[in-house]
Amino acid sequence: MDGTATPIDALARLTALLEPELRATNQAIVARMDSPVALIPQLAAHLVAAGGKRLRPLLTLAAAKMCGYAGGRDVQLAACVEFIHTATLLHDDVVDESVLRRGFASANAVFGNKASVLVGDFLFARAFQVMVADGSLEVLRILSAAAATIAEGEVLQLTTQNDLATTEQKYFEVIRGKTAALFAAACEVGGVIAGSGPAECAALARFGMDLGMAFQLVDDALDYSASVAELGKTVGDDFRESKLTYPILLAIAAADAAERRFWDRTIGEGAQTETDLATALTYIRAHEAIPRTLARAGTFVESACAALSLFPASAMREALMDVARYTTARRY
Amino acid sequence: MDGTATPIDALARLTALLEPELRATNQAIVARMDSPVALIPQLAAHLVAAGGKRLRPLLTLAAAKMCGYAGGRDVQLAACVEFIHTATLLHDDVVDESVLRRGFASANAVFGNKASVLVGDFLFARAFQVMVADGSLEVLRILSAAAATIAEGEVLQLTTQNDLATTEQKYFEVIRGKTAALFAAACEVGGVIAGSGPAECAALARFGMDLGMAFQLVDDALDYSASVAELGKTVGDDFRESKLTYPILLAIAAADAAERRFWDRTIGEGAQTETDLATALTYIRAHEAIPRTLARAGTFVESACAALSLFPASAMREALMDVARYTTARRY
Repeated sequence: MDGTATPIDALARLTALLEPELRATNQAIVARMDSPVALIPQLAAHLVAAGGKRLRPLLTLAAAKMCGYAGGRDVQLAACVEFIHTATLLHDDVVDESVLRRGFASANAVFGNKASVLVGDFLFARAFQVMVADGSLEVLRILSAAAATIAEGEVLQLTTQNDLATTEQKYFEVIRGKTAALFAAACEVGGVIAGSGPAECAALARFGMDLGMAFQLVDDALDYSASVAELGKTVGDDFRESKLTYPILLAIAAADAAERRFWDRTIGEGAQTETDLATALTYIRAHEAIPRTLARAGTFVESACAALSLFPASAMREALMDVARYTTARRY
Repeated sequence: MDGTATPIDALARLTALLEPELRATNQAIVARMDSPVALIPQLAAHLVAAGGKRLRPLLTLAAAKMCGYAGGRDVQLAACVEFIHTATLLHDDVVDESVLRRGFASANAVFGNKASVLVGDFLFARAFQVMVADGSLEVLRILSAAAATIAEGEVLQLTTQNDLATTEQKYFEVIRGKTAALFAAACEVGGVIAGSGPAECAALARFGMDLGMAFQLVDDALDYSASVAELGKTVGDDFRESKLTYPILLAIAAADAAERRFWDRTIGEGAQTETDLATALTYIRAHEAIPRTLARAGTFVESACAALSLFPASAMREALMDVARYTTARRY
């Protein structure tokens, strides 16, 4: 681990190692989003232009390569992973009524909620068509289970939205579903197509799951710390949506009576005024909720890296471990 | 064809022939909708209580039986077909902002749009999990293609919503996607699991496709003729949503200048007043748009029945043909 490296460097190194595969994946994404119904490639182009890090497809490509895979299935399945991710983003933005996504106007803001729901459905179906063309029932099993778990996590998040009694355990269930399950599936699929054994595939799933948990915890922390320019979304989005994320859970657990009343009103009842976000940030800082959230993410990162120790050292393994290690320092 | 029979009789006869399989399908639907996230079985129970005719799963069960199938896969795949259908209903109701579905409060009206989007996603993912457990890539191919076609049809409908220049051809593309594709897939899957040959499977798909086209045309006609009590939805829903359905296309094609201005305003611009539905009904009646829509449905029914002539005569084949024949007389 290079002391002068940054999170962006770690991701850039992984991306550089997989440059041809990632380019092919981007081509597959555009090619497979084609449809005689013009709005579908139009909305797809909006999403592709908005970019994104392609972190999840990179995980599939990296896992496959680390396990010695040399064919072309990784590219097609990486595109599937990105389709499933994009479909959930489209539906999330409808559910959250977001207006920004990665710093761009969100698809629902430009094309309307209806188009976002329906194009999300299309991408989801298309992902399964591509998997069927690939022909592996094991891959289909892994990604259909991930898709169901994602939806369960999102529904669970919806039901805990204003519930201050939400436990840490339930919060972890939510993020395991809404975020970590797809990271896990993306990694595991790489091992499956490389013909790796059950222990290797399980280790890849473990790595992805723990990385995803860390990633979401950092995302929750960034929502109370990053600027719009850095993160490409509005600061305090989670607060305004009364989402019980980890920093809030920590602040509530440490709250005095006045603070408790504040959280009851702003998160429990969702009754907020203009100055409430600033007050929330004060309480969050007072209880060191952000560094404690990042520390919790750090334990998931350690577990993720430990899972990869099953594999022989390689440039790909080190690059994956670095992406995990720098997750807690990321600003993207 | 019994001269005293009614459409309900035809559906009841098909249902009676498949009574044990349909009961098993209903049990599979409830069992497979289970989730540790309580809102999912709750919303599922709401949908199951609302009932519905289970027409699509009946088609899978009937096609399989007509082709001599005697195992248990038909029940699981019939449940998948109903899950895909229910997922699209949940998302449709969000897109259409419907408050009634089959005469019950729609799920989005009771549980909110967010839950409807996310539980729809869950049902869709769960359908694929059940198909993966079934293990046939051919079934997965058929139903993933149908799911993509459904979404394309819905998006196309969205883009034609206020467009008075919509052609009959484009309208047929919309209903082929949003309705007929799943009818076709439901029938074809029955043949596939029975091990029928390509000609038989293609004939089943043809039957389902034509039946679905007829079914949607009748649905469009009923929207301008049925009462809430009969149809379980609000009369004039399509009009209020400015949907260019077949009766409207016919009325527009035959419109004089004043009528054209009326359609431009009410459908093209979506600017409607309280009395506009009554006026629309007057124009629709003047141009006999409802009987002409039903006649067009009748030609699809003929084509559907012709497709089934490939199969030897049997009680199941006659029951399927009767369901098709009585589609144009249905009030449900």
